Amino acid sequence: MLDVTREPPQLRKDPIIGRWVIISADRGKRPHDWIVESKKKVGGFCPFCPGNEDKIPPEIIAKRENDSAPNKLGWTIRVVSNKFPALQIEGDLNRREEGIFDLMNGFGAHEVIIECPDHLIELADLHINHIRDVFWIFRERIVDLKKDIRFKYILVFKNHGIAAGASLEHSHSQIIALPIIPKRVVEELNGAQKYYSYKERCIFCDIIRQETQWNSRLVISNPNFIVFEPFAARFPFETWVLPARHSVSFKDISYEDTYELAATIKETLQRLNKALENPPYNFIIHTSPLQDHEFSEYHWHIEIIPIITKVAGFEWGSGFYINPTPPEEAANTLREIQL
Amino acid sequence: MLDVTREPPQLRKDPIIGRWVIISADRGKRPHDWIVESKKKVGGFCPFCPGNEDKIPPEIIAKRENDSAPNKLGWTIRVVSNKFPALQIEGDLNRREEGIFDLMNGFGAHEVIIECPDHLIELADLHINHIRDVFWIFRERIVDLKKDIRFKYILVFKNHGIAAGASLEHSHSQIIALPIIPKRVVEELNGAQKYYSYKERCIFCDIIRQETQWNSRLVISNPNFIVFEPFAARFPFETWVLPARHSVSFKDISYEDTYELAATIKETLQRLNKALENPPYNFIIHTSPLQDHEFSEYHWHIEIIPIITKVAGFEWGSGFYINPTPPEEAANTLREIQL
Repeated sequence: MLDVTREPPQLRKDPIIGRWVIISADRGKRPHDWIVESKKKVGGFCPFCPGNEDKIPPEIIAKRENDSAPNKLGWTIRVVSNKFPALQIEGDLNRREEGIFDLMNGFGAHEVIIECPDHLIELADLHINHIRDVFWIFRERIVDLKKDIRFKYILVFKNHGIAAGASLEHSHSQIIALPIIPKRVVEELNGAQKYYSYKERCIFCDIIRQETQWNSRLVISNPNFIVFEPFAARFPFETWVLPARHSVSFKDISYEDTYELAATIKETLQRLNKALENPPYNFIIHTSPLQDHEFSEYHWHIEIIPIITKVAGFEWGSGFYINPTPPEEAANTLREIQL
Repeated sequence: MLDVTREPPQLRKDPIIGRWVIISADRGKRPHDWIVESKKKVGGFCPFCPGNEDKIPPEIIAKRENDSAPNKLGWTIRVVSNKFPALQIEGDLNRREEGIFDLMNGFGAHEVIIECPDHLIELADLHINHIRDVFWIFRERIVDLKKDIRFKYILVFKNHGIAAGASLEHSHSQIIALPIIPKRVVEELNGAQKYYSYKERCIFCDIIRQETQWNSRLVISNPNFIVFEPFAARFPFETWVLPARHSVSFKDISYEDTYELAATIKETLQRLNKALENPPYNFIIHTSPLQDHEFSEYHWHIEIIPIITKVAGFEWGSGFYINPTPPEEAANTLREIQL
């Protein structure tokens, strides 16, 4: 293998459609490594397991029992910097051009939340209180990272299973703080603002009203959260979780509501696990950007996407989706599951 | 398995960001079928192999030797309707609303191009003349489908390999004619128009000029076509093929240029195959919509996306991409390949 000097990560803008992409050579591999990677099985040494605290970057925060010391045994949840970050916290943005192209330094934070000490337990199997603590820590990290005014958006997401992009089996989620707002979020904000300026109502609240009334795509409905399969779902069993009352930003969630969210997420994942035999999945928290001026028309939510179809290659590449499972059918299947 | 009555396909619009999605229950599976599917191996009976012409819908056009009869042996390339179409050619659009949601009937055409009789030969291995014939047939089908003025866009794409979404191993590509313009295409058109209104130049032509001059992301350059890794590549080894001279629509390609395109595509796929050990891949022809008024600022091109990384789950779901292989590095690898 060649010893190639790595460039620091960059944020590059697609000149045609304006989408920012992280080009992160530090996480990169030589072409041959890619091939080996795809044949590799998960297993062996796990840096997230208790006893290996010194093999990964020191913890940023943790939930610990009995006043145990940082970076030692005794934790139930740990947040650490990603050992192979897609972005670097050092340096400045240095927005610049390269001919007709626009780019900036890959400035940002990339953290990992190790959700529990047990290597074999997955998020859906944790006690509701424990899941609440995981989501509460998401919130705490957002509130802390928000202090750095260079960040414009914080992405919280989870890759569960190799097919969903998880490089380690041990249950974890990730936080990426960005100096830009991802294109998809900009589109959602624009869409919500356009609807509001026409109707003077939140589009997400209107969707909730309609889904609750019609019931055909509804999976779970309780006083605090609503879970449904979206009308124009891109993927089979794509599932959205929304706060029932209008709320712009995930960081404004109360401690009590975080428990209700944890209970709702646990039930949703359990239903998906039972219907689809423990599929790999991604979830992403969609929330308002970090500006002082918040986007009052927006409504935060969580999108869960099980990775159960290979039909997706073309769809993902083209941005055009063919979904072979009507969301009404998926909702019906999920509702009928006996837990 | 329950015998569920299938609804006809629908085109549904995401109410927030305006993306149209095909909901196509006819291609659908019961949840359990999905699980079985993912464990299934490709192999056994192949409906695309010679001798099985009567097992699939009759051919629309074909390239045949020695005046052989339609739907019999003797073909080298065949175009047939997809046996499990995502869209239906019967009926009308019937644009309508369902509460706050917008939808229309899943009207459209869905065809399959069987690229050669031999089950084990892939596109990259075919003779240049044969590849030219495949692309020339793409063009013929577009010209024919364009006559139906209800179609607004024709997508030509190929899924190669199971991980890229191919349900059959036998080398084939697909054509989908749509009554809407896919969101990604609209974004490209808007981007190209915005650039043109500012600079009075085609953005793709400007990119070609710059990539040819700088050379760092260039893979192939000949008088008719240019192949490079895009500046803000979403995926490792994402590769674009563009006509060197400004050309709005793929359907305007000459027979002579189709040969040059075939030679360029063959060399590109061979380089990718050698660098990445025959990866699964998707390619998509990006071309101007079918309106009488064409988008003169647009420049047709082909995007090839090798499916070599599992990192993609989250990126694909969120529309936010982290690419661990700088395009300069990928271009360098592809250029250095000895064919």
